[in-house]
Amino acid sequence: MHYDKKSIDQLDRVTRLKIINSVTGVKPGNLIGTVSENGYTNLAIFSSIVHLGSNPSLLGFISRPQTEEVGHTLRNIQQTGCYTINHIHPKFAEKAHYTSAKFPNDVSEFDACELSESYINNFKAPFVKESVFKMGLRFKEAIDIKLNGTVLVIGEIEEIIIPGNAFVNGDIDLEESEGVGISGLNTYYSLKKIGSYPYARLNEIPNF
Amino acid sequence: MHYDKKSIDQLDRVTRLKIINSVTGVKPGNLIGTVSENGYTNLAIFSSIVHLGSNPSLLGFISRPQTEEVGHTLRNIQQTGCYTINHIHPKFAEKAHYTSAKFPNDVSEFDACELSESYINNFKAPFVKESVFKMGLRFKEAIDIKLNGTVLVIGEIEEIIIPGNAFVNGDIDLEESEGVGISGLNTYYSLKKIGSYPYARLNEIPNF
Repeated sequence: MHYDKKSIDQLDRVTRLKIINSVTGVKPGNLIGTVSENGYTNLAIFSSIVHLGSNPSLLGFISRPQTEEVGHTLRNIQQTGCYTINHIHPKFAEKAHYTSAKFPNDVSEFDACELSESYINNFKAPFVKESVFKMGLRFKEAIDIKLNGTVLVIGEIEEIIIPGNAFVNGDIDLEESEGVGISGLNTYYSLKKIGSYPYARLNEIPNF
Repeated sequence: MHYDKKSIDQLDRVTRLKIINSVTGVKPGNLIGTVSENGYTNLAIFSSIVHLGSNPSLLGFISRPQTEEVGHTLRNIQQTGCYTINHIHPKFAEKAHYTSAKFPNDVSEFDACELSESYINNFKAPFVKESVFKMGLRFKEAIDIKLNGTVLVIGEIEEIIIPGNAFVNGDIDLEESEGVGISGLNTYYSLKKIGSYPYARLNEIPNF
């Protein structure tokens, strides 16, 4: 099927949302944990975590335009300066999905979705106990994307918890850690390793 | 295993690269096709394509700091104003991987890696013929990330080619289109659908 600009513009809102949220290909499934300055914890699903650099260790994610009702994650990050990123595991993918419901300010998604807070090394933001692969980040910068009002939120990694079995031949194997991918707004995938190729050197290009 | 900030800082360069490039979880595997103002085509693998919004339809990707040797993708995009994003299919994952070798300016990765250029609707940038799921984008903005010298490159989708079998119950199914995920710098995954949950409404939270 082929959509050009005109036919994309003419799609109804829901079809357009579903298609445009799927076209990047698979997205990483993560939960971001935060706490407000008043001590209310928050947990929200994000599929937009992106690697920015390894030295310093920077990750970004896209926050939608802020309103009173949504956007507690960015508000909490700006209040406390820290947050956690927790890989979604197939065992709790459904619970993770439902963190996207619009819970009131004083309801923690940890409670509502039956996931457990855990605290590591005096890091202020809550980790997800059920997640086997997780990180604590220090907030560095929020860059406004004026084209559509979204925000690129950047943090530096300060804590990493990785399951020991995920280290395979010096690399991290997301099939072993049972990482989850997302497409569109509501479809979840498990991962199966199909290949691992060496660093690509100009004088070592294979005969395909 | 647990790394804190101090132990992250003390990792040797290669181990650090491998770990920090894997911690987001699975990344979408795509090839970006461009052409320079002199007519040289370029094809490069990117795992940082991120959804920014559906109306307008905006995607971003992270370009590393520019040098003479690398960064032809962003240079070409700025010269011509357009580029293509092509999903990697398992059948050509190895060829896609080797586009990351540092080929000279006048060598097209299409030729070197035995992938085929195709042109659609007078769109100036080359698509990958072998890719079944691909898009043409119009360059909108390049936002400098001063923390590490990378650039968030933003474009609007003008053409989308989706395989018909990927539409399943009104959603796009990346298992059907055989989308590929990446972890770290060189490991590739296929996708298996494990669940699809409805839009999360506050009064429809399941009993977990």
